[in-house]
Amino acid sequence: MADIGVLSAHLLSGFQKELFTRLAEVGHGEMRPRHGAVMAYIAPAGTRASELSERSGQHKQVVGTLIDELERLGYVSRQPDPADRRAKLVVPTELGRDQMLQAAKIIAEIEDGFARRVGTEKFSAFKEVFAEIARTYG
Amino acid sequence: MADIGVLSAHLLSGFQKELFTRLAEVGHGEMRPRHGAVMAYIAPAGTRASELSERSGQHKQVVGTLIDELERLGYVSRQPDPADRRAKLVVPTELGRDQMLQAAKIIAEIEDGFARRVGTEKFSAFKEVFAEIARTYG
Repeated sequence: MADIGVLSAHLLSGFQKELFTRLAEVGHGEMRPRHGAVMAYIAPAGTRASELSERSGQHKQVVGTLIDELERLGYVSRQPDPADRRAKLVVPTELGRDQMLQAAKIIAEIEDGFARRVGTEKFSAFKEVFAEIARTYG
Repeated sequence: MADIGVLSAHLLSGFQKELFTRLAEVGHGEMRPRHGAVMAYIAPAGTRASELSERSGQHKQVVGTLIDELERLGYVSRQPDPADRRAKLVVPTELGRDQMLQAAKIIAEIEDGFARRVGTEKFSAFKEVFAEIARTYG
């Protein structure tokens, strides 16, 4: 049987193709899988770039470039953090919030499809083990 | 709970960091995670580039560039396919075969660690569901 690395790479690549094809169909055709490192981890009220880097496991510089791209595309804006004037928050715009909502809907549908395929109980046990294993990487 | 995409991305990134750090410790410091799209799918007797592209889900052109890099690093060579003189096979060199052996050992150790953590039975059920779900993406 394929190892965990091959399985993760294969699932991630198929999942991203499906998600970003369907996002394009609902008006988010400029989103690319790499933007997920920001959009998947951003809170509606904004998140610091350093936290996006930590949560996504991507280098700070990579995350900075992605935020630049997303700012140009109109998905996020950099705003001063009310809690710390020296810090900045990356905040989703209205377009960004719509993308997050659409992505959440599509992802829920994809996971429902998997759950129907393998059985709801088996799928939820699968996700629990997945989360536990992923957690070992911090 | 995090979705399948976030979990896959997180597990893959941690797994790759561990694998490639440990490969560097056994003399394969020039290997990069991107090279996995070739080295994880290559047979000891060689594999066609088109099949590496299909199996890894990476674009043909990307795989071509990776093969060029791996050829320069001494891990693979392009050789005529004995079954079809017009076709070429990507064949691991002795260095490439050592990398494949070391990677297989390290991956087995990583998976053993996961199995001990969550329990052998739960881990093997997890991998079965993982493979079934990954298969839906072809």
